[in-house]
Amino acid sequence: MTPLIKQKPVVINVGLAAFADNLRQCGGEVQTLQWQPPAEGDVTAGWALAQLLAHPRVEEANRIAYSRYLAAQPVLSGVSTAAQVLPGMTEKRILHSGPPIEWARMCGPQQGAVLGAILFEGWAPSLEDARKLVEAGAVELSPCHHHGAVGPMAGIISPSMPVWIVRNAAGENVAYCNLNEGLGKVLRFGANSEEVVQRLRWMAQTLGPTLATLVEEIGGIELKPLMAQALHMGDEVHNRNAAASALLFRKLTVAALASTRLDARAVSESLAFIASNDHFFLNLSMAACKVMLDAAHGVPHASMVTVMARNGVDFGIRLSGLDQWFVAPAAIIDGLFFPGFGTEDAARDLGDSAITETAGVGGFAMAASPAIVQFIGGTPRDAVANTRRMLHITLGQNGAFTLPALDFTGTPAGIDARRVLDTGIQPVINTGIAHKDAGVGQIGAGITHAPLACFSQAIEALAATLPAPQ
Amino acid sequence: MTPLIKQKPVVINVGLAAFADNLRQCGGEVQTLQWQPPAEGDVTAGWALAQLLAHPRVEEANRIAYSRYLAAQPVLSGVSTAAQVLPGMTEKRILHSGPPIEWARMCGPQQGAVLGAILFEGWAPSLEDARKLVEAGAVELSPCHHHGAVGPMAGIISPSMPVWIVRNAAGENVAYCNLNEGLGKVLRFGANSEEVVQRLRWMAQTLGPTLATLVEEIGGIELKPLMAQALHMGDEVHNRNAAASALLFRKLTVAALASTRLDARAVSESLAFIASNDHFFLNLSMAACKVMLDAAHGVPHASMVTVMARNGVDFGIRLSGLDQWFVAPAAIIDGLFFPGFGTEDAARDLGDSAITETAGVGGFAMAASPAIVQFIGGTPRDAVANTRRMLHITLGQNGAFTLPALDFTGTPAGIDARRVLDTGIQPVINTGIAHKDAGVGQIGAGITHAPLACFSQAIEALAATLPAPQ
Repeated sequence: MTPLIKQKPVVINVGLAAFADNLRQCGGEVQTLQWQPPAEGDVTAGWALAQLLAHPRVEEANRIAYSRYLAAQPVLSGVSTAAQVLPGMTEKRILHSGPPIEWARMCGPQQGAVLGAILFEGWAPSLEDARKLVEAGAVELSPCHHHGAVGPMAGIISPSMPVWIVRNAAGENVAYCNLNEGLGKVLRFGANSEEVVQRLRWMAQTLGPTLATLVEEIGGIELKPLMAQALHMGDEVHNRNAAASALLFRKLTVAALASTRLDARAVSESLAFIASNDHFFLNLSMAACKVMLDAAHGVPHASMVTVMARNGVDFGIRLSGLDQWFVAPAAIIDGLFFPGFGTEDAARDLGDSAITETAGVGGFAMAASPAIVQFIGGTPRDAVANTRRMLHITLGQNGAFTLPALDFTGTPAGIDARRVLDTGIQPVINTGIAHKDAGVGQIGAGITHAPLACFSQAIEALAATLPAPQ
Repeated sequence: MTPLIKQKPVVINVGLAAFADNLRQCGGEVQTLQWQPPAEGDVTAGWALAQLLAHPRVEEANRIAYSRYLAAQPVLSGVSTAAQVLPGMTEKRILHSGPPIEWARMCGPQQGAVLGAILFEGWAPSLEDARKLVEAGAVELSPCHHHGAVGPMAGIISPSMPVWIVRNAAGENVAYCNLNEGLGKVLRFGANSEEVVQRLRWMAQTLGPTLATLVEEIGGIELKPLMAQALHMGDEVHNRNAAASALLFRKLTVAALASTRLDARAVSESLAFIASNDHFFLNLSMAACKVMLDAAHGVPHASMVTVMARNGVDFGIRLSGLDQWFVAPAAIIDGLFFPGFGTEDAARDLGDSAITETAGVGGFAMAASPAIVQFIGGTPRDAVANTRRMLHITLGQNGAFTLPALDFTGTPAGIDARRVLDTGIQPVINTGIAHKDAGVGQIGAGITHAPLACFSQAIEALAATLPAPQ
């Protein structure tokens, strides 16, 4: 007979290290587990969390919200201008990424992009005049998210810009996103030179109308299967869109070949522009994610996160059950910088593109995209670990977006703010890095995390909507 | 003090199980390792192998052959007809896949495809007359590989067919492959109806000349970077070519948009045809692999494998150091069948496409392509295991083809016939499965292995070229 237990017992201490002092003094052997209290030890948030965890109303609300997210069917159904289709788009309004922010607090790239948009709209003849116009309060600034829209990085949408229109075929809601300008000097990274403004004009005059006709000829493109296919081709449809862009290009080209209504030069220029940009699909991915999450928004008491967005100063989240923002300072991003740049040059976390992570793709689907690490840093193993870690904070796995590297299980989706606060596991986000000054452009890419402070505020606010516990 | 060894010693028996009988009789504990002698216990092949293993001439020859393979730079440099560019292409010659085979022994799909090619060429007015023509010996049949060419499945190339021309920019050699016809009823699976022949005529009259102009306008396409990119997008460039086909389509379209020399209808038809076929790149991948391996061919005493090919009856390999085929019966393939079909309907292993595995991609690069298992069976874990296993039989890893799932290490490449025979590890091949009868088409896809008998013959023949050991 061999004894099953060959070692002297060791006590495992879960909680404050001081709990074990007595035991140690009596000669006991203690192993201290790395531990921290839920809600980062914030007592108010902790009590709110305790009230919400396993609360039947929250559970039921999340079930409804999450099933609406799963059921959503994003269909690219058109291209128009912001002025024509965006709800609440007044004559002199410019939309920006992230939670609400006034002009004076905006980060460099976002200010630069607002000024560029004013030049593009012809509201001012020079950057200087444009700045005066904003400072005089003559331009209304509001978040894309308040108008059913999203925009990457600075996220600027002005009335004359063309936008993708993505409808939820399984519901009533619609989402919008601007068109991707390509790389280099572009408005979304705060560049506003003549070259940038000229490109925006061409996009409004040529690209937008051409795409509008092509989408009409195709009769709409279902985006979920296209994104799912791209996930099987190494994209995570946030920072890597190489496959999705190539597949979209092919669909548009086939439609262009069959069409008799289009101007040959406009088609030729438009297709060449799309072909040159492996990120072209990003803005469509964002609109698709927005439409899926808007479907889940507005279920009272639901703790499911429906928005994560940054304006380069603040990071904001929204819950399905509450119509308000919960903000905390935007993070500095740890990433790979282009030669000659470093952390000290970087703007803080910026853009609405974290809508992809909120919808279970992007950083949440990194396991699908081992090659992404060449762009944002880390190893393929880290990419898989990031996806796996997100399983602890999500309501389920989305079977429409399967991950080959995880045996075709669905991507973790539907962030539950309660679980984030309870576990301290922050949602992971893949992102580009903008220079902090307007006009310089992208200087790197990396991984960042949603700040926990947003989640503790949200949980406290959500708890306040429920009757006090007996 | 705790003793390091807590267990009573156990003897591990490597070799015949009978070796351990004595020990067991004396009360010893024996663990028998699963073991079989090299060369499957074939004494002649085993002696030949012993002579070649670590032989300095073979080592040096392999070093040269393998470095020529690594250095090769396949460039798509044109499209022409087989009659115009293939060496030794006489007026009434039809090329087929695999090692040499006479008409009477050919499998159903290959016979069907030969007859279809005769109709396409106009050498006979009906299938019946075409058969009489071949049986009368009026058509010369020879392997693609004897003419610097490769062809998937039946691998039929007749004089008027358009072929890809792929040059080795780092050498003098050139390789050729026919163009992919798409899925459904196609010649390469033995179909030869009017629809099939009509498509071949359109390919010769429209697709071929259009592609010739486009490739000319582009000025050649480097195929190694394109294949490497596709490996980062879930292709293994044998049975999965979704990414490579989409990327090639984009390149050709951009050239077409810029060209003024092309007929609009021909361009439109050609691009639509290419867009509809996710396997379109396969034939280019094969030509690229052929050119890389031909660069390594012809180094005396080298045991590096430069060809693996099947004609549906025989499986044949060739070594760099010897100008002859070593054949064994082609295997029945274990795979996933389309509904209504099973193993009993399947033709044996068929096609020159195993040139991809010979060059280190296809089955050897399965780790790049977890989604391939949905097509050929198994799990993503199996896909990675297949790639890892091939490291035991290859001369190195090709740094030009990196695998994200294996931390961006190169794909196992340069099969050493000695190691195959020594370890018993058979080269893995991803493949389509044809119906055994002509004209039915593809009925599935799966994984197969090169038969060891080819390798024992090759090793015996190679040993015979070296002076007898002292």
